[in-house]
Amino acid sequence: MKKYKVMSKTELCQEKQQLEERFADIKAKGLQLDMSRGKPAVEQLDFGMKMLDVLNSTADLNTETGFDTRNYGLLDGIPEAKRLIGEILGVSAENVMVYGNSSLNIMYDTVARSMTHGVMGSTPWCKLDKVKFLCPVPGYDRHFAVTEHFGIEMINIPMTPKGPDMDMVAEYVNNDPAVKGIWCVPKYSNPQGITYSDETVERFAKLQPAAEDFRIYWDNAYVQHYLDFNDKEELVDILGACEKAGQPDMVYEFCSTSKIIFAGGGIAAMASSKANLDYAKKQMNLQTIGYDKVNQLRHVRYFKDIKGIEEHMNLHAASLKPKFETVLQGLDKELGGLDIGTWIAPKGGYFISFESLTGCAKAIVAKAREAGLVMTSAGATYPYGDDVNDSNIRIAPSFPTSEELKIATDIFVTSVKLISVQKMLSALDNV
Amino acid sequence: MKKYKVMSKTELCQEKQQLEERFADIKAKGLQLDMSRGKPAVEQLDFGMKMLDVLNSTADLNTETGFDTRNYGLLDGIPEAKRLIGEILGVSAENVMVYGNSSLNIMYDTVARSMTHGVMGSTPWCKLDKVKFLCPVPGYDRHFAVTEHFGIEMINIPMTPKGPDMDMVAEYVNNDPAVKGIWCVPKYSNPQGITYSDETVERFAKLQPAAEDFRIYWDNAYVQHYLDFNDKEELVDILGACEKAGQPDMVYEFCSTSKIIFAGGGIAAMASSKANLDYAKKQMNLQTIGYDKVNQLRHVRYFKDIKGIEEHMNLHAASLKPKFETVLQGLDKELGGLDIGTWIAPKGGYFISFESLTGCAKAIVAKAREAGLVMTSAGATYPYGDDVNDSNIRIAPSFPTSEELKIATDIFVTSVKLISVQKMLSALDNV
Repeated sequence: MKKYKVMSKTELCQEKQQLEERFADIKAKGLQLDMSRGKPAVEQLDFGMKMLDVLNSTADLNTETGFDTRNYGLLDGIPEAKRLIGEILGVSAENVMVYGNSSLNIMYDTVARSMTHGVMGSTPWCKLDKVKFLCPVPGYDRHFAVTEHFGIEMINIPMTPKGPDMDMVAEYVNNDPAVKGIWCVPKYSNPQGITYSDETVERFAKLQPAAEDFRIYWDNAYVQHYLDFNDKEELVDILGACEKAGQPDMVYEFCSTSKIIFAGGGIAAMASSKANLDYAKKQMNLQTIGYDKVNQLRHVRYFKDIKGIEEHMNLHAASLKPKFETVLQGLDKELGGLDIGTWIAPKGGYFISFESLTGCAKAIVAKAREAGLVMTSAGATYPYGDDVNDSNIRIAPSFPTSEELKIATDIFVTSVKLISVQKMLSALDNV
Repeated sequence: MKKYKVMSKTELCQEKQQLEERFADIKAKGLQLDMSRGKPAVEQLDFGMKMLDVLNSTADLNTETGFDTRNYGLLDGIPEAKRLIGEILGVSAENVMVYGNSSLNIMYDTVARSMTHGVMGSTPWCKLDKVKFLCPVPGYDRHFAVTEHFGIEMINIPMTPKGPDMDMVAEYVNNDPAVKGIWCVPKYSNPQGITYSDETVERFAKLQPAAEDFRIYWDNAYVQHYLDFNDKEELVDILGACEKAGQPDMVYEFCSTSKIIFAGGGIAAMASSKANLDYAKKQMNLQTIGYDKVNQLRHVRYFKDIKGIEEHMNLHAASLKPKFETVLQGLDKELGGLDIGTWIAPKGGYFISFESLTGCAKAIVAKAREAGLVMTSAGATYPYGDDVNDSNIRIAPSFPTSEELKIATDIFVTSVKLISVQKMLSALDNV
C-alpha cells in the first residue's frame, strides 16, 4: 500500500472519495456497538457459572479454621481467601487483606484515607498545599479520576516498552516531597498491554522518595490475564523487591477477581507490608464489621488454588485471543505500512492501544461513532482527559462477538484512514 | 426482696457474703461466653440457607430489565433490589441506592465525603474550624467511632422513652451552624429498643437547621426486627415527613440485610431524596464500577417482596423472643424492686439496655468477665466511651444458646447485686 504521506493531492482526494463510499456502506449496516469499556463477553461470564453451585443450602459455610462466614467478624478476610489471592499475586497470604468486590474501591479508600488521616503518621494530605501523583501515560482513566477528585496534581510520565520512564520517575520521586504516589498497571498495562521489565521493577524498589508517605499504587488488575498460557509474561514481585531493598512499606498492590469470575460479583484485595496493612485495617475497622465472607468462601471452594485459577483463565484466554487477533489482523492488513498509526500486539490484558497521527484521535472516535461504534473517548487515557497530542485511542475487543468485532474493526480502520487523509489534505491546503 | 438502700450495714455485709459465695459457684461452671456484640445465633443464620439455592449454574442472572448482573454496570443497584429495599423501609424504589454488604460503610463514606467535598456544594468539613454531631445517648458505638475518627465533636443528647430529647436537638440544630448531623437508630434503638414516636419524627422533619449541610443520619438497622409480628411498633416514614415539611434533602436513611439474612453476606442501602442520591452517586462513580449485583439478585429471587421478608423475620422473632424473655425474667426476678437498676423491655432490635447505680457499670462488666462472661465494654454506648454516670450496660441476648443465656443472666444479675452492695457498703464507710 502506498503511504499517504507520499501521495499527491490528487491521489489523496481519490483515496478520500473511496473511503467515504466505503464508510457509507459500513454505516448502512446499522451497527450499534459499545466498545467503550473493557467488559467481559457473555461467553466469558458463562465460564464462571459453576461457582454458583459450590455453596448451596447443604454446604458447610465455615472457614477452614471453623469460623462461620455467615456471621460478623474476620474483618480482613477469611484465611483461605487470603491464601488464594496470595497465590494469584505471588505473595504470602500474610501480606493480603480481602475486601469487597471492587479493587477500585480499595484504591479510592486508600487515597481518601491519606487525604484525611495521612499515611502511618504523616500529615493528612488535605492539610498540605500541594499533593502530586505520577501518572504513566497512556493509563487507566479511573485511576486519574480518583486523584482528580481529591484535587491531587497529576504529572504525566511517558510509557516505554519496558514500563514508565524510570529516569523521570526517579527524578520526581527522589526530589519532590509533594509527590506521594504513582499509578501503575504493571502487567499487560491498561491500555498498552505492556508488562514492566525486571529492571523497571528493580528501579521502583530502589527509589529513594523525598516523601515518607510516598507509595507505589500497583494495580495488578491483569496479573493472570494472559492471552496464551504458554506465552505469558512474567512480572517481578514488587513486594519482595521492595522488602529486599529495605523499603517494605513503599508499595500497595491491588487486584480483584472481577475479570476472573464475574465483573459484578468478584472479590478484591490489597497486598502490602504488615505495617501498611495494620494501618489500613484501623480505617477498615471503622468502615465495616466485615466484607462479604460468603462470597470469599464461594471463590475458594470453586477455584481451590492457583491451578484452578489458571484452568479458568485458560478459558478466558481461548475466548479473548481470537478477538485480539481479529483486531490486530485488521490493523495490520488495512493500516500496516501506511505510517498513519502505530500499535502494540499485547500478550494479555483487555486492550489494544492505538496511536494515530497527531491531532486525529478525537476525530477518529467521532467518525466511528457516526457508524454506530462507541469507543472509549479519545483523551480518556490521560489525566484530565487531556491527551495533548490527541493521538491515543483505546480499543476494547472483549465484549463484542467475533462477527461484531470484524465490522467494528472495519469501521475503526476506515475511520482512521479517512481522518488521516482529511488531515493530510488540510495540511496541503495550509501550505 | 428488701431494697439494699434500706438495709443496715450488717444486712448488707451478710448479703455481700451470700453473693460472693453464689458468684464463686457460678464462676466454677467455667463459662466462656462472648456477649459483646449483637451477633445473630447459628440458628438464625440457618434460616437463610435456602437463599444459596436460588442462584445456581442453571439460573438466569439477568435483572427484570434484562441487564446481566454478572457484568459491570448498574452502579446504584439493580431495579428489583431497589424495590425490595424500598418495601423494607416503606419508601419508593426511586429513593433507594443499593451498595455493598455494609450499611456502616455507607455511613462512613457519607461522612468521609462530607469531610473532603462538603454536601451538595457546601464547604468541605475538613476546611471548617469545628464540625459537630448530635449523639442521642446511650447509642451505637460504631456511629460514634466514625465521627470521632474524623475529629467531629460529639454532643450527647439524652434519650427519652419517645426518642431523643427534641427540645435539645432543636436548640442545637436550629442555632449552631457547626452542627452538621445527628446519629439516630429510630426503631428498636441500639441499645434501648426505643422506637421514636410520631411526634418525635414530625419534630425532626420540622427542624430549621442553621447549617445548609445538616443531615439526619437515620440508621434504620432494625426496621423489620420486631420480636413479635403482632406486637410490632410503627415508625413514621421520615423521608415522607421531611418532604411534606418542604425539606426533602434533610435525611439520609440507611439499612442492610445483615441481620435479616447473613451478617457476613447481606446487602446494604441508602434511601434519600433524588438530590442527595445524585450527589452521593458522583462519589460512588469514582469509587467503584458497581457493587455485587449477583448478591442483590440472590436476595430478590429469595425474598421476592416484603411478604417474604416478613415470613423470614417471623423466624428470627421466634428465635429471639424467648432469649429476650430469659434475660428480662432474670432481671425481674433477681433485681425487680431492689432499686439498684432499671431497664426497658423492648419490642424489637438486638439489645436490652441496663442502667445500674451511678458509678457501677464498669465494675459490673469487669465482675461478669471474671466469671467468663464478656459483655460490651461499659461506656461503649457513649461518645468517646465516656458514660459520665458510669451506669449504662448493653446486653446482647441473641448469640448464646438458651442454656448459655440462663447462666449468663445469672452471672450478670449476681455481678450487679454484688457491685451494688459493695458500693453501698463503701458509701456507708465514707459517711
